[in-house]
Amino acid sequence: MIINEQMIDDIALGATVLGTGGGGDPYSGALMAKVAIRNAKNPVEIISLEEVQDEWMTVPSSMIGAPTVSIEKINSESQMLVAFEAMEQALGEEIQATFPIEVGGFNSLIPILVAAQKGIPVVDCDAMGRAFPESQMVTFYLDGLPSAPNTLADEKGNVVTLHPLDGVWSERFARPITEEMGGSAAMCDYPMKGHNLKRSALGGTLTQAMQIGQAIRAANKNGENAVDAVLDIVGGTRLISGKIVDIERTTAGGFVTGGVIIEKLTKAGTQSQPKDVYVHFQNELLLAHKGRKAEEISQESLLATTPDLISILDHETGQPITTEQLRYGQRVDLIAYPCDPKWRTAKGIEVAGPNYFGYDVQYKTIEQLIQGERA
Amino acid sequence: MIINEQMIDDIALGATVLGTGGGGDPYSGALMAKVAIRNAKNPVEIISLEEVQDEWMTVPSSMIGAPTVSIEKINSESQMLVAFEAMEQALGEEIQATFPIEVGGFNSLIPILVAAQKGIPVVDCDAMGRAFPESQMVTFYLDGLPSAPNTLADEKGNVVTLHPLDGVWSERFARPITEEMGGSAAMCDYPMKGHNLKRSALGGTLTQAMQIGQAIRAANKNGENAVDAVLDIVGGTRLISGKIVDIERTTAGGFVTGGVIIEKLTKAGTQSQPKDVYVHFQNELLLAHKGRKAEEISQESLLATTPDLISILDHETGQPITTEQLRYGQRVDLIAYPCDPKWRTAKGIEVAGPNYFGYDVQYKTIEQLIQGERA
Repeated sequence: MIINEQMIDDIALGATVLGTGGGGDPYSGALMAKVAIRNAKNPVEIISLEEVQDEWMTVPSSMIGAPTVSIEKINSESQMLVAFEAMEQALGEEIQATFPIEVGGFNSLIPILVAAQKGIPVVDCDAMGRAFPESQMVTFYLDGLPSAPNTLADEKGNVVTLHPLDGVWSERFARPITEEMGGSAAMCDYPMKGHNLKRSALGGTLTQAMQIGQAIRAANKNGENAVDAVLDIVGGTRLISGKIVDIERTTAGGFVTGGVIIEKLTKAGTQSQPKDVYVHFQNELLLAHKGRKAEEISQESLLATTPDLISILDHETGQPITTEQLRYGQRVDLIAYPCDPKWRTAKGIEVAGPNYFGYDVQYKTIEQLIQGERA
Repeated sequence: MIINEQMIDDIALGATVLGTGGGGDPYSGALMAKVAIRNAKNPVEIISLEEVQDEWMTVPSSMIGAPTVSIEKINSESQMLVAFEAMEQALGEEIQATFPIEVGGFNSLIPILVAAQKGIPVVDCDAMGRAFPESQMVTFYLDGLPSAPNTLADEKGNVVTLHPLDGVWSERFARPITEEMGGSAAMCDYPMKGHNLKRSALGGTLTQAMQIGQAIRAANKNGENAVDAVLDIVGGTRLISGKIVDIERTTAGGFVTGGVIIEKLTKAGTQSQPKDVYVHFQNELLLAHKGRKAEEISQESLLATTPDLISILDHETGQPITTEQLRYGQRVDLIAYPCDPKWRTAKGIEVAGPNYFGYDVQYKTIEQLIQGERA
C-alpha cells in the first residue's frame, strides 16, 4: 500500500485516539511525513507483518523524550536517519524495514521519515498498540527479546550506542542521555530479524489508526455520531458523556501527572452512567473511577485501568483530546477499550498495569468491569 | 621497566600527593594492581612516551565517578577490560598500549590491570599531571584531539559507546550514565595514535609519582624531612606549617565541596608564613588564600590556585592527606607547586582555572605569587 497524504492525516487522527491522551501531538509528525514522501525518490510503502521476510533485519524508528520538545527540535530532518544508520553500523548490516515502536501519538509517523529517506518499507505493526511512557513497555520486552543495541542521536551530531542488559536498563540509560541531548532524541532499539518481529509485534495497528481516522472524518461528513464510529472499530464502551469540571496537572520528572473530573450531562441514554468520573493521567490517561476525587480510587469505584485504553473524545466531533488540550467546560465522551491480549498476561500487567504506575488496585479487564456493572 | 610491587606502592603514595586531596585513595588500586601483575602471563612493563610507536593505537584506562564508590565496586576485575575491549570493537582495531588519564589518585594504577590482562605496556604519561574532577580537563582537550569514541562499562554487563562532539559533551553524557551504573564505571576515551599521544600527553608523570613515593619513604627511613624531599622533586613551596582548626564539608552534585582552615604553628622558620590559611576544595584542593574565612578570597589574599597543584602533607611524615582524611588538630604542611605549562595557556586556564570552579580571582602562577610575597 503506497502512503499518500490523506493516509498520513488519517493515521495522525487515529493515532491521537490510540495515544490515550499522551504520546504527543502527531500533527507536526504528519507535516514532516508529508514532506518526506514528497521528497522521496520512490513511493513509500506500508507492508503487512506477513510480508516481512524472516531473515530481514527490522528496526523501529522513534523519538524519545517530551513530545512538546520533540516537535520544536526535530527540524533537523537527518537526526532520525543518523540514529538509524548508527544502528546499521552497530549491527554491521543493512536494515530492510522500519516500523513504529508505538501506534499512539507522535511516534506513529516517524518511521515514514526514515522509510522515505532509506527507500525501505514501513511495516504495519507496533510494539504497544497504544502509547506508553517508558521504553521497556513493549511486547518485545514481554517476549524476552533483547533491547540491545540501542542508538540515540541529537540534532547537533552527538550519537550514543547502548548495549544494555535489557529493556529496563535501556530506559535507565536512555532517559538521562535524552535530557542531556536537550529533552528529546531520535532512538532505535530492539533490532530484530523478521521472524521475531512476526512473533512479537502487534500487526495491523497502523491501518487500525488509519481506519479510526477515516471513520471520524466520514462520520462528521455524513452527520453521524463520530464517537460511536470509533467505538465500533476499537470494540469500546462509553464510560461517561459529560462536561469537564476540573483539571489537576503537575509537571515533574518529565511527566505530566494529574487528573480530570468529568460530570455527567443529564440527557436521554445516560441513565446507566455514573454521576461523575475521575480520570488519572501520567502523560497517558491511565485509570478512571467513579467520584470527583483522586482518593476515591478503589476496586469498587474502578471503571477502567491501564493497560486497557482510555481516550477522551470531543462529544460532538469525536476529535481526540490530549491531556495538554483538556480544558474546563469541554463536552466530552470518555471511552475505554481492550488492549492487546499480550498486555493482559501476568508479565504484561506487571510491566504496565495499575500497580506499576502506583495505583493500588488490581487490574480488571474493561470487559470484566462492564460485566460487573451490569450484574 | 618491569613493574614490581614496590613500584606500585611508591606510585600509590606519590599519586596521592599529586591527587591534591582528590582523585580517590589509590591504595585499593595498588592492591588490585599487585594481584594483576602476579596473575599476568608476562611481566608488565612501563615504557617511556618516546618508546611509543607513531602508528600504535593507544587508549587510557580509567574509572569515572565517586572514588569511594569505585573502590567498593571494582571487585568485578573484568569491568575495566570490558570497557577497553568495547573500545577495540568501536575502533575496529587492537590497542597496543594503555596509560593513566590522570596521575593523581586512584586512576594512576588502573592501567596496570588492563596491561596485565592484555599483555600490553603502560606508557609513562598522563593527560593532567595531577587529578581533576571532569573528563574534559585533559591536555588532549586543550590540544583539540577528539574525545570520541568513548566506552563505559559497569560490573553487571552494561556497555555504552558514546560518539560525543567533543570532551565537554563526553562529560555531559558520561556523568549521568555513571550515575545509572551505580556511581562508578570503567571508562575509555580519547583513543589516539602514538604520534598524537607523544604530542599531547605529559610524559614521565608515572615515574614522577614513583619518585615522590620513594622520596617520602627514604626520608622517613633516614630521619630526614619528608616534606622537603617532596618539595625538591615537584619544585614547590611550603605555604604554611600548621594545625587544622576547622573543616567545612558539603557533599552535593557528586562533589565534596568545602574548605579547611590551617593555623600557623609558631616556631623557627615560619616567620614569613601567614597566620592562617583557608584552602577551598571541590574534591581536589583548588585554591588557598590568607585568612580564616571563605569570603576573604581576593586577588590580594591569594596564595595558590588551580591549575597549579596544592597538597596537604602530614607535618612529620610527609604522608599526603586526602580531603576525606582531613581532621581537626592534624599537624600539616600545605604545599603548592607548578602545573604543566599546558595548563597555563589561555585555554588551559579557561578549562581548569579558578573562574571555571566559580572563584572570582585571576589566575597567577605559584611562582608569581611567591615573587609578589617577597617583593
